Amino acid sequence: MDHSQLCQNIKEKRSFLCVGLDSESDKIPASLLKKKDPVFEFNRRIIDATNKFAVAYKPNVAFYECNGSEGWNTLEKTARYIKDNYPSVFLIADAKRCDIGNTSKMYARAFLEKMPFDAVTVAPYMGEDSVTPFLSYKDKWVVLLALTSNKGAADFQYHNEDGIKLFERVLSLSLRWGSTDNLMYVVGATRAEMFSDIRKIVPDHFLLVPGIGAQGGSLEEVVKYGMNSQCGLLVNSSRGIIFADSSGHFDTIAGEKAEEIQKEMEKYLLQRNIL
Amino acid sequence: MDHSQLCQNIKEKRSFLCVGLDSESDKIPASLLKKKDPVFEFNRRIIDATNKFAVAYKPNVAFYECNGSEGWNTLEKTARYIKDNYPSVFLIADAKRCDIGNTSKMYARAFLEKMPFDAVTVAPYMGEDSVTPFLSYKDKWVVLLALTSNKGAADFQYHNEDGIKLFERVLSLSLRWGSTDNLMYVVGATRAEMFSDIRKIVPDHFLLVPGIGAQGGSLEEVVKYGMNSQCGLLVNSSRGIIFADSSGHFDTIAGEKAEEIQKEMEKYLLQRNIL
Repeated sequence: MDHSQLCQNIKEKRSFLCVGLDSESDKIPASLLKKKDPVFEFNRRIIDATNKFAVAYKPNVAFYECNGSEGWNTLEKTARYIKDNYPSVFLIADAKRCDIGNTSKMYARAFLEKMPFDAVTVAPYMGEDSVTPFLSYKDKWVVLLALTSNKGAADFQYHNEDGIKLFERVLSLSLRWGSTDNLMYVVGATRAEMFSDIRKIVPDHFLLVPGIGAQGGSLEEVVKYGMNSQCGLLVNSSRGIIFADSSGHFDTIAGEKAEEIQKEMEKYLLQRNIL
Repeated sequence: MDHSQLCQNIKEKRSFLCVGLDSESDKIPASLLKKKDPVFEFNRRIIDATNKFAVAYKPNVAFYECNGSEGWNTLEKTARYIKDNYPSVFLIADAKRCDIGNTSKMYARAFLEKMPFDAVTVAPYMGEDSVTPFLSYKDKWVVLLALTSNKGAADFQYHNEDGIKLFERVLSLSLRWGSTDNLMYVVGATRAEMFSDIRKIVPDHFLLVPGIGAQGGSLEEVVKYGMNSQCGLLVNSSRGIIFADSSGHFDTIAGEKAEEIQKEMEKYLLQRNIL
């Protein structure tokens, strides 16, 4: 999927919502536990209930990997289910991988060849040759960590050389590695005050924004400082949607929560004349 | 395994060699391709042939993950095989994971609970709360990326605030998160000139050193600048050992290559009066 197709999908669904499939086994509703693969069943029902309101899905790989090879099998089935049934959805593997070049190539193969993900999140610490193997696939994307939503972000991401913070250097240096068609950035919603400065460096790139809801970020603030003329945002919500309810109707409630966010997003898209 | 046990193992084997099980499917000797799980068969024979000369093994997870859930199954079998047959070996998952706290906890569970790894490599970009979940296990270790062996290391790891490079900040700040019993650092052998400065910050911690052999680093230089009074080094070799030969005798040759390195290591340990 390229940049213009993603923009088109946002207009059609009147939404820039990404649903985070952080499907922790311990939180799966009791009604599913007798199924052969409860996490897959949970994901399937969440996806069916929310896809009208979401342009993207983002399974965080950790929540599958903690169940070993069986968990990886669940991840594979989930990725295939999404692409078989909702091919226009933008599918992100939240994996935060990084390694030397010949090894990053193997991670890229895992997510962008072996599984049908459109994008994979990558940690920048090891620099250019750890990132570029992920950028060699047509219509596939790297989502590079820039400024994350957690408290520990302050430990290193603000490390400041001559007025340039590390995350700003990540943004400006990586601009040479990819384009607005294959590179976007993670910027946490809990850092809304930083979006204006970030938009000076990457005015046209998509930003993937975690941290609204459970982590305390505000969608209104993110839009105010981060939205560009084509939207340029994918805002993620995980726990606030998928674990909003634990009854047998968890999927209906998840759909309602996703729709609430979509309605708010639609309002912002109209205000900015994007719709 | 704690620090003193690891030092004891180094003395007993007269070696600080870590064998990197970067067992790329495409490079597995033809004679194994008819086996049900060629990568596992390859690993098993490599491990049996080299364990007398190695104190540690380090599968890089990417080379398993690229084969999806089947690859993860191979990784699980490999980890179990090592711990069942050679329990004193220090087993490192080279995974370079990082994520927010509740997610890092899932990665920690994957490698330190679900599989019997002693240690997992972690990328520091997201700071303290992304690392500490891995440190909550007794006798298990974090191997934190400090200064990596690849070219791209220069892109961000040297980012310099008031004379303090990013990797130096990673070292000094993380000292508060763990101890010499549960925290070690990745420092690339290709940066031997930096070991003296690094030893000023972390004199007593173990350093895991990739980059000798195929990547061009020198064992002699690493020892000269990086060894401390208890050794304090685990030096990794992957391709130079495991893919030294592709005939039916690949394991014998791998054993010979491992022994060559062990003999050189023994010489250094004797020179420094550690043996």
